[in-house]
Amino acid sequence: MNKIKTDIAITKQLATLEPLIGRDRQSQNPDHVYLSFGSPDPNLFPVKAWRNATEEVLRTNVIDALQYAGGKGAERIKSWIIDRGKLRNLTLDEDQILITAGAAQAIDFTTRLLLNPDDEVWVEAPTYFFALQSFHLADANVQMIPMDAAGIDINYITEQLEDRVKNNKRIPKLLYLMPNFHNPTGKTLLLERRRQLAILARKYDFYIIEDDAYTEINFTEKHVPAIHSFAPERVLYIGTFSKVIAPGVRIGWIAATKFFIDKMKLFMLGPQTSPIVQEILGTMLEEFPIDPHVHELATTYRSKRDKMISDIQTYFGRTVTFHIPDGGFFIWLHLKEVVDPEDLLETAFNHGVSIVIGDSFYKEAPHRTCVRLCYSYCSEEQIERGIASLAKAYHSIIHNKNFHK
Amino acid sequence: MNKIKTDIAITKQLATLEPLIGRDRQSQNPDHVYLSFGSPDPNLFPVKAWRNATEEVLRTNVIDALQYAGGKGAERIKSWIIDRGKLRNLTLDEDQILITAGAAQAIDFTTRLLLNPDDEVWVEAPTYFFALQSFHLADANVQMIPMDAAGIDINYITEQLEDRVKNNKRIPKLLYLMPNFHNPTGKTLLLERRRQLAILARKYDFYIIEDDAYTEINFTEKHVPAIHSFAPERVLYIGTFSKVIAPGVRIGWIAATKFFIDKMKLFMLGPQTSPIVQEILGTMLEEFPIDPHVHELATTYRSKRDKMISDIQTYFGRTVTFHIPDGGFFIWLHLKEVVDPEDLLETAFNHGVSIVIGDSFYKEAPHRTCVRLCYSYCSEEQIERGIASLAKAYHSIIHNKNFHK
Repeated sequence: MNKIKTDIAITKQLATLEPLIGRDRQSQNPDHVYLSFGSPDPNLFPVKAWRNATEEVLRTNVIDALQYAGGKGAERIKSWIIDRGKLRNLTLDEDQILITAGAAQAIDFTTRLLLNPDDEVWVEAPTYFFALQSFHLADANVQMIPMDAAGIDINYITEQLEDRVKNNKRIPKLLYLMPNFHNPTGKTLLLERRRQLAILARKYDFYIIEDDAYTEINFTEKHVPAIHSFAPERVLYIGTFSKVIAPGVRIGWIAATKFFIDKMKLFMLGPQTSPIVQEILGTMLEEFPIDPHVHELATTYRSKRDKMISDIQTYFGRTVTFHIPDGGFFIWLHLKEVVDPEDLLETAFNHGVSIVIGDSFYKEAPHRTCVRLCYSYCSEEQIERGIASLAKAYHSIIHNKNFHK
Repeated sequence: MNKIKTDIAITKQLATLEPLIGRDRQSQNPDHVYLSFGSPDPNLFPVKAWRNATEEVLRTNVIDALQYAGGKGAERIKSWIIDRGKLRNLTLDEDQILITAGAAQAIDFTTRLLLNPDDEVWVEAPTYFFALQSFHLADANVQMIPMDAAGIDINYITEQLEDRVKNNKRIPKLLYLMPNFHNPTGKTLLLERRRQLAILARKYDFYIIEDDAYTEINFTEKHVPAIHSFAPERVLYIGTFSKVIAPGVRIGWIAATKFFIDKMKLFMLGPQTSPIVQEILGTMLEEFPIDPHVHELATTYRSKRDKMISDIQTYFGRTVTFHIPDGGFFIWLHLKEVVDPEDLLETAFNHGVSIVIGDSFYKEAPHRTCVRLCYSYCSEEQIERGIASLAKAYHSIIHNKNFHK
């Protein structure tokens, strides 16, 4: 009997996670707080600029937008990407950029380009769950690499690679990582480690996917050079407009060598990414004051981050630890006591707050309990109620646990 | 040394084809005629309805459109698909539909769901080149099945299947076909054969991808039931708004069992297809008078088809044969004498007309010379100039050939 391809892996983590990040499990309670949603604050969408650009396209360019090939949209978006990339020392030509349906399709295409079944891919521990899903779908062999406060552990990587060579073992094909405001930990990879990773990729002959989705949500004055800038032939760089403009735009990109870009275009099977949206976005970017906009994003999200940190201190006290992120959307909470993840999820939900359990970011459940909290989507008032409810849920579980001892 | 996955097949045909269907090879001559473009006539885009719907979304719903989840767009599009599907005897629930980035992504997802490397897939000879590319990318084993005037040769299929069973050989995993106004031949699959294919798929345990991209461009009063209606658990049905609304919309869909749909959702890695476009399209479809619209499409395209047929008769006379399509965009021209495809392409281009060479629709170059002509995109005046130029190019090649004999 013919079998449906059964290697479409759904990890237990993803199965657990889906209802919490989707809209399937919505509470009946209108006061329920979704610290699980990794979405931007819709109050920060540049609605006026989007509206104006849409109206301009309707007025001047609607036929191009409705045809396969589009008009000048793609070209304008690529110009913007090239220009903006200079902040991160990226040096790009138009033919080194592929516009994709969000960062999701960029992860999908780079995975399919590089990974054959059983190829080894290294990721940070923890890492983005949909990247994990992509590597599972490719039947790749995922290995998780420890992180410290400055990002992925470069000494561990170097030792592993030396060990592989010494013992005549296979080198991983690929390293996937998020150097800026990492999802879920919020950490930023040290400049010196970026340089070293580029050297290692060349020396040991592997590739790097540099997923830079959160780079524009930056609370500092600094822009750390991308790994891509140190080894452009080894690094496939992923960007997206989801956080800086809006997720509904569904436009992301891959920057890589022309050779790789041409290969990945084949996955499109002909047509390009939404011409309609590209015309609007391209028109909008022509005049969009990006600097004041990202300044506004940083100000608002930093304030929400600070509110969440202060609420965590108030309601959790010393029962948790976390890293203070310099950007992005997330705080990654380590609970001092290990609790059952499903129990925590359920109890928190019943207390009126949704979270994402840390297990979702690992290949195998870790020995400690972590929680990803998103401060971007909720209001400061919701953040406080959410953190208070989560603390109550956690403490009630601990209390019951101790009581039954 | 790590190798980039080298099995990303670029067939010679595709390499030849790319410049002609893309925008890479544009003539400097403003009078050049592109009978190669498989695009709709932009004069038929429902621009007013699109504009109104866009403005309504801007007015009432722009925040939903810009967020990951979107608003009611997806739901409205699915209702329309369910309702419209009844014309073709399709009985669908919402959870049996996946909205994709055009039919291209639908082909990609169904291929990745069903095909493991070396799995056998049967296709019509000739077939859509980007479906061929998708199967190549999946490392599948493609076999081409003959067609006659009533579509794919069902006797040939039946004999092949009986032979496989008798000789204890593997049954193909998948049959991919275009039952209505087939690309490139314009043929329609006989109702009785659809019923038989459904029976064979059940009996021999294979799956069918029913690519129905051209179904709305129908010059007859009849709607033939879809193969899906005879074996919904065996058939993955693909539809698209590219021909009936506009290609720039980049919205297609797959109709299949909930089990299959849930699996294919995983390929999205989280977010759904463009919420912005789905909000606009969903809003538009709510009030869009589809029947007068498809009537207008049929009237215009039928007239262009008739013009092309009459021009072929005028300029080619008896040196070609072709099938008269009852819908769709294409005429598939058999040239009576075999000529070198690259020579024909080049000579035609120099005479001011672009075409798609028949070889692109085959796994291996066939022993006869065919040409796909698209009558949808060009004006009737362009069609006449294009056909006249192509005939001149063909006859000059034949003349030279005979001269050098």
